[in-house]
Amino acid sequence: MKILVIHGPNLNMLGRREPDVYGTSSFDDMNEHIKNFASETGIEVEIFQSNSEGGIVDAIQRAVDTVDGILINPGAYTHYSYAIRDALKGSGLPVVEVHLSNIYAREEFRSKSVTAPVADGQISGFGVESYLLGLRALSSLISKRRHGNV
Amino acid sequence: MKILVIHGPNLNMLGRREPDVYGTSSFDDMNEHIKNFASETGIEVEIFQSNSEGGIVDAIQRAVDTVDGILINPGAYTHYSYAIRDALKGSGLPVVEVHLSNIYAREEFRSKSVTAPVADGQISGFGVESYLLGLRALSSLISKRRHGNV
Amino acid sequence: MKILVIHGPNLNMLGRREPDVYGTSSFDDMNEHIKNFASETGIEVEIFQSNSEGGIVDAIQRAVDTVDGILINPGAYTHYSYAIRDALKGSGLPVVEVHLSNIYAREEFRSKSVTAPVADGQISGFGVESYLLGLRALSSLISKRRHGNV
Amino acid sequence: MKILVIHGPNLNMLGRREPDVYGTSSFDDMNEHIKNFASETGIEVEIFQSNSEGGIVDAIQRAVDTVDGILINPGAYTHYSYAIRDALKGSGLPVVEVHLSNIYAREEFRSKSVTAPVADGQISGFGVESYLLGLRALSSLISKRRHGNV
Amino acid sequence: MKILVIHGPNLNMLGRREPDVYGTSSFDDMNEHIKNFASETGIEVEIFQSNSEGGIVDAIQRAVDTVDGILINPGAYTHYSYAIRDALKGSGLPVVEVHLSNIYAREEFRSKSVTAPVADGQISGFGVESYLLGLRALSSLISKRRHGNV
Amino acid sequence: MKILVIHGPNLNMLGRREPDVYGTSSFDDMNEHIKNFASETGIEVEIFQSNSEGGIVDAIQRAVDTVDGILINPGAYTHYSYAIRDALKGSGLPVVEVHLSNIYAREEFRSKSVTAPVADGQISGFGVESYLLGLRALSSLISKRRHGNV
Amino acid sequence: MKILVIHGPNLNMLGRREPDVYGTSSFDDMNEHIKNFASETGIEVEIFQSNSEGGIVDAIQRAVDTVDGILINPGAYTHYSYAIRDALKGSGLPVVEVHLSNIYAREEFRSKSVTAPVADGQISGFGVESYLLGLRALSSLISKRRHGNV
Amino acid sequence: MKILVIHGPNLNMLGRREPDVYGTSSFDDMNEHIKNFASETGIEVEIFQSNSEGGIVDAIQRAVDTVDGILINPGAYTHYSYAIRDALKGSGLPVVEVHLSNIYAREEFRSKSVTAPVADGQISGFGVESYLLGLRALSSLISKRRHGNV
Amino acid sequence: MKILVIHGPNLNMLGRREPDVYGTSSFDDMNEHIKNFASETGIEVEIFQSNSEGGIVDAIQRAVDTVDGILINPGAYTHYSYAIRDALKGSGLPVVEVHLSNIYAREEFRSKSVTAPVADGQISGFGVESYLLGLRALSSLISKRRHGNV
Amino acid sequence: MKILVIHGPNLNMLGRREPDVYGTSSFDDMNEHIKNFASETGIEVEIFQSNSEGGIVDAIQRAVDTVDGILINPGAYTHYSYAIRDALKGSGLPVVEVHLSNIYAREEFRSKSVTAPVADGQISGFGVESYLLGLRALSSLISKRRHGNV
Amino acid sequence: MKILVIHGPNLNMLGRREPDVYGTSSFDDMNEHIKNFASETGIEVEIFQSNSEGGIVDAIQRAVDTVDGILINPGAYTHYSYAIRDALKGSGLPVVEVHLSNIYAREEFRSKSVTAPVADGQISGFGVESYLLGLRALSSLISKRRHGNV
Amino acid sequence: MKILVIHGPNLNMLGRREPDVYGTSSFDDMNEHIKNFASETGIEVEIFQSNSEGGIVDAIQRAVDTVDGILINPGAYTHYSYAIRDALKGSGLPVVEVHLSNIYAREEFRSKSVTAPVADGQISGFGVESYLLGLRALSSLISKRRHGNV
Repeated sequence: MKILVIHGPNLNMLGRREPDVYGTSSFDDMNEHIKNFASETGIEVEIFQSNSEGGIVDAIQRAVDTVDGILINPGAYTHYSYAIRDALKGSGLPVVEVHLSNIYAREEFRSKSVTAPVADGQISGFGVESYLLGLRALSSLISKRRHGNV
Repeated sequence: MKILVIHGPNLNMLGRREPDVYGTSSFDDMNEHIKNFASETGIEVEIFQSNSEGGIVDAIQRAVDTVDGILINPGAYTHYSYAIRDALKGSGLPVVEVHLSNIYAREEFRSKSVTAPVADGQISGFGVESYLLGLRALSSLISKRRHGNV
Repeated sequence: MKILVIHGPNLNMLGRREPDVYGTSSFDDMNEHIKNFASETGIEVEIFQSNSEGGIVDAIQRAVDTVDGILINPGAYTHYSYAIRDALKGSGLPVVEVHLSNIYAREEFRSKSVTAPVADGQISGFGVESYLLGLRALSSLISKRRHGNV
Repeated sequence: MKILVIHGPNLNMLGRREPDVYGTSSFDDMNEHIKNFASETGIEVEIFQSNSEGGIVDAIQRAVDTVDGILINPGAYTHYSYAIRDALKGSGLPVVEVHLSNIYAREEFRSKSVTAPVADGQISGFGVESYLLGLRALSSLISKRRHGNV
Repeated sequence: MKILVIHGPNLNMLGRREPDVYGTSSFDDMNEHIKNFASETGIEVEIFQSNSEGGIVDAIQRAVDTVDGILINPGAYTHYSYAIRDALKGSGLPVVEVHLSNIYAREEFRSKSVTAPVADGQISGFGVESYLLGLRALSSLISKRRHGNV
Repeated sequence: MKILVIHGPNLNMLGRREPDVYGTSSFDDMNEHIKNFASETGIEVEIFQSNSEGGIVDAIQRAVDTVDGILINPGAYTHYSYAIRDALKGSGLPVVEVHLSNIYAREEFRSKSVTAPVADGQISGFGVESYLLGLRALSSLISKRRHGNV
Repeated sequence: MKILVIHGPNLNMLGRREPDVYGTSSFDDMNEHIKNFASETGIEVEIFQSNSEGGIVDAIQRAVDTVDGILINPGAYTHYSYAIRDALKGSGLPVVEVHLSNIYAREEFRSKSVTAPVADGQISGFGVESYLLGLRALSSLISKRRHGNV
Repeated sequence: MKILVIHGPNLNMLGRREPDVYGTSSFDDMNEHIKNFASETGIEVEIFQSNSEGGIVDAIQRAVDTVDGILINPGAYTHYSYAIRDALKGSGLPVVEVHLSNIYAREEFRSKSVTAPVADGQISGFGVESYLLGLRALSSLISKRRHGNV
Repeated sequence: MKILVIHGPNLNMLGRREPDVYGTSSFDDMNEHIKNFASETGIEVEIFQSNSEGGIVDAIQRAVDTVDGILINPGAYTHYSYAIRDALKGSGLPVVEVHLSNIYAREEFRSKSVTAPVADGQISGFGVESYLLGLRALSSLISKRRHGNV
Repeated sequence: MKILVIHGPNLNMLGRREPDVYGTSSFDDMNEHIKNFASETGIEVEIFQSNSEGGIVDAIQRAVDTVDGILINPGAYTHYSYAIRDALKGSGLPVVEVHLSNIYAREEFRSKSVTAPVADGQISGFGVESYLLGLRALSSLISKRRHGNV
Repeated sequence: MKILVIHGPNLNMLGRREPDVYGTSSFDDMNEHIKNFASETGIEVEIFQSNSEGGIVDAIQRAVDTVDGILINPGAYTHYSYAIRDALKGSGLPVVEVHLSNIYAREEFRSKSVTAPVADGQISGFGVESYLLGLRALSSLISKRRHGNV
Repeated sequence: MKILVIHGPNLNMLGRREPDVYGTSSFDDMNEHIKNFASETGIEVEIFQSNSEGGIVDAIQRAVDTVDGILINPGAYTHYSYAIRDALKGSGLPVVEVHLSNIYAREEFRSKSVTAPVADGQISGFGVESYLLGLRALSSLISKRRHGNV
């Protein structure tokens, strides 16, 4: 089972950016956590980060034939990127949306996700653990689809 | 570690109500899953269901001195119960909000949660697995707080 | 054929409350009318009143296996109770919503019903006759469903 | 007792138009039902259909001195015809608004009626039976007014 | 100088309709007033009433080559008839909009005029005198245009 | 009969300010027109101009016992001065609101008048003639009230 | 003179909940204050607290024949309980609404009260003193009504 | 293949009305273009114009059994005629909506079409060529449906 | 302890203005009540009234060094004067906002106070007693601040 | 005559993405159609696709000196890319906007185009034929501009 | 070159009011800075402060013939004074709007300026330096206009 | 002191694009002005332009360790790029936002900046001088921060 993990804009600055909101561990630390968790649970992960909306759309399109599911934190694009939404929907893959912070407890504009309606589910507010929970949820969805239990 | 699991209105009808949205396994099945998972991970769970807003507020208040965290699926009250919101906030406990279905992919009114802003995080869309992921997330939050890592 | 008649909050004060809006006949008078009409038309009615949103949800849930349809005047809950809406929808029963006064000719907030979209139909503005017309409409719907004409 | 029954735009296409919403019986069938019901209950009915907003206003004005009440299904004009609203209010006659389908369970724009606030009541969602229930309600209103019980 | 006076829907019921809002003098009385005033001030008037939006548009189009200005009370169409607005604008004629009642002191929907933006001016609230003042204003506009003082 | 004519903010700059909107005749010219018209029609006028909202409220209060009616062009205060609205309503005097330009054909914010709902009527779009028409309308209202025809 | 004091949801947690907003004195302390004040001023008070919307409606209905006025802090229900609003209005009793904190200086949703329009007055922001001031105001209203000075 | 071409209100004034928006060629010129184009491409066209909303609904209803598709420029009715929308939807025919001007580059109210959601497609901004392109599109749709390629 | 009492626009007309809303006792009567109450409770009051927004801002600024708190009824300015809001906030003094009538039971625009968010509390609906209750509340706030209990 | 055809995000996935909305023919098929049509009608086309908003802006800028017009399907960027809007407007070239599906018959957010106001026209709903019709319209616009008939 | 510097309401309290937002230097300090800067750059400045909206309008009107440009910080009036907007526009002078704080980073209501649309430009967020930058910008605009480079 | 100057989308077309809005001097001219001004005032500038949202985010991230402040004209991204907003906020650098034109005097959508709330200040409307003023303001902010005067 192979999963593409997409980090949206500014997530690569983790640990350097607003530690009161996002904590102090770095982007590399986070990816380390993700990879360790994945290898423990037998998931192959590919990690991708881009600040570019088009770059994320490109990555989703490339994923269509190469992975079994997408775990995505669209960052600020969560709130307005209908292009990413269309790409996710068009991929036909299981999709889980994750957020480090609780997006419903911050600025008003962050409480609307334009991508969530095309995802299978959303996990928000648990720091890097949002990603690990998301991997669990996604691998479970992939397994169920494989066995026809959708 | 003890966690109060609160099921809001109509969740007791699970399996009997709109199977296309909520699946066919019953409320008892779901609670069985929750209890099994809890016992496997060394969490003590207390399960509570009520169709009454006031009853849920009462339960949250009683929990203040008896549990370490609250996992809540407020059901339809998610969208308008400021009384439950106030109770959750006032409890001072870690709170995780969960939903069986992806509330962002349904009727417009379901895409607004008035309780999420006072929860630590939210998990939506994975059926009963939303609860299991929520228990993981919540126990992790409780552990961190115990060790002073908030 | 058995029908559950649900009166929402404050309807038990009928005749004592705002007679210019609701008329002067009492709650008991109204129920008498309903029972007489039912017995004349061969319908068995069970009458339930509660000021509690959760109590109404409970009653709807109990009705699932015991009645053939629900006639409901949700009172003020009409305008915000998504919990009652979910219960009605989840019941799978035919549902008719009734109102004593014309809710479209009063305060702005009364012109929105959150329960009407899950009812089969709505009757508003005819005093106790709204209930009698509703019983007619509901018994007719029940008969049609029995004969497979939905 | 004489009642004017007004069918608004496109109702004459009944049975030929969107049978999933409006059923398969024809406009003539519906009028037959209405006339039969009226003759059984001793009501004289005059049936009028027009696709023209002005034509409907004209008909309401003509009715002022010739009928005792108006039963109207304003069709799409329900949602924006303040001219029909003014005509109904200006007529001084008892008015009942009816709809074949449950207008609260369809497109958003159909959930607002600009004519309902000037009607005595509204009945929505029961197919041709909405008209028959409306005739009952209206004749009852007319009788009450005659006997000074408004 | 010839002016077309257009009365919109329901104005022909004047004196018979809501006397608390519109007074008790009849439609014929009003037209008599208008004609007398016009003849005193040397204006030729043509008076037209229709309940039909299309009929009013037709009348405006016919007026293009036959009158020097239009005085219009669009009645309820004031609030939504973009067709009449387009006809008035397309006529190229001076236009004055009048209302018997003060439309800003009534229901919310009456405080928006979609035709006023294409009129030269608007007069509202003075009963039949609104028309007489409108005729003065319009004849003055026509005179000014004739003398190139626009 | 004595009428207070109130010019709101910036009207004293007439002829010096945006001639494409307001024309080229000066504030003094306008007042000359008003006075001439008043003296011809036997009305005594008092003319007041202020850029101050409070100053206008003061003037309205002083007028209560000294004039028979108020003709007011509230200028920009039209769109937000609830203080002037309260003063006008509290005066108990007949009030006519006038505007030089057609306020419905300009910026969006100008299409809302907070004072019009408490005036007897409004005249908009005829330059200085708006005032003259307003004086006519107002003197007519005053006469009618004197003779008990309200 | 007897007054029913109603505390809405979560007020029983006072002193245990968000001390920065609500202060540190307990619910019992507050009630002690209220009782002392009442006994000093010769008012009989009955104190009721419930987290349940329906329970509060029940209490208001019971009060109709047993008390002379209602002092209510509806807590979170302030912002959406049309059922409590209807009960208050239907009671026909003088009603004063009080709030511990200044609801206009907190989250946006708290600045709207659906119950205030049916109360005689509202007092907000003075901690337990809001209740004492409310008792004064209410007893004064009751006295005035007794003496026919409404 | 026969197509009904419907011109809505004021289109008959083409060339006489706002040439800066609609150009200088006349309504007859436009129809000549349409007929020539149709005859060249082997389409039979019937051309209908009305200023009346009801008249347009009538024409659509008559078309149901006599033509293969409808090309419509609803003029101002585009923005509010739910009656025309219902007629188009009810016709079951392929429908193409056209506009002479780019309705998205004009007044705000013109950017909303209530009829477009029930059309197959929309073409806006190309003058009379909008109609010719619309005929092409529509004839292509009709051909495809005939051959079962929808 | 010295308190500045500010009456906003039109309050000086009390007793002469809309007695159904504001009662019949005069402005002088009200100030007499206030002074008597103040002298009884050992508070020094300075009473100020102005119809001018700027005048009220000036008064608040002068008060900064001369009084211990401000009791203000901003009248119509309540609903839009951000200048008064800024002055109140900038004064650093305890502030209580009062209203004679229940502003939540009147026109829609009166239900929003732009000054309340910067006041310590608000009292609305008790006639002149609103001021007396406000003086109590304010003197209590001043005492608490003096003793460091904020 | 040379035309730049721009395909926005996800259009390259055509045939692989949501066939119920977009049909089953592939992106290459579509371009083949476009090229064939262009060569038949003597138009030189350059085809460009990008998922990147900035990439599309770049392409539009490069086009300024190299093509005679732009045919663009901005895909999801239609609904929010003011950057593309500015680029199109700034290009000074004739622009036609096309969409495969009828964007007015889908999700609410798709009914708003921020680019249409700066295009010459828009064609929506005809699959690949939208492009071919757009090429016709655009080449006609280019010809007219060349001959000075704008 | 002479410039009128207008300080709106509450700016005279600078240094005494909310130092966390506005800093600690006084109003006199700020004016000293402005005068020094002006004298260094050869600009004559006249400084005016008023808490009165009307007073500011008066000052702008007086400036028309005496200065070459206006630098204005309208304070709270920024957000609602259409009277000041009209005065600025009517003055025909170059206008620069300045703010001490970044009005876009504070309360929601401060992010809307009704005066900015009639200013030449706006500078916000740099404390007293906003004024100095504004003087530079304004003197530059005045010079350009003198040399005909607008 | 080193400052990164970021030009957003389409600014590279300056002088070629909408000269009535943006003037006729070219992008290179503007950069020449900026460099000259910078070298005169001892500031080192790095100039960056991109049409790509992601490219701008990348540039901001690279700047974190290499410059002392950012001067940015986000072009159209001003109005919707929460990604750029997050990058600016996350950079921890002083930020000044500039615009060539007065964005508050143009289309409605341009009056909202999503980036301004995270900038230190904003300068709008002075052509290339906006940049020069911005450099002054920014270098002053940087100096103050260096000396601990924030």
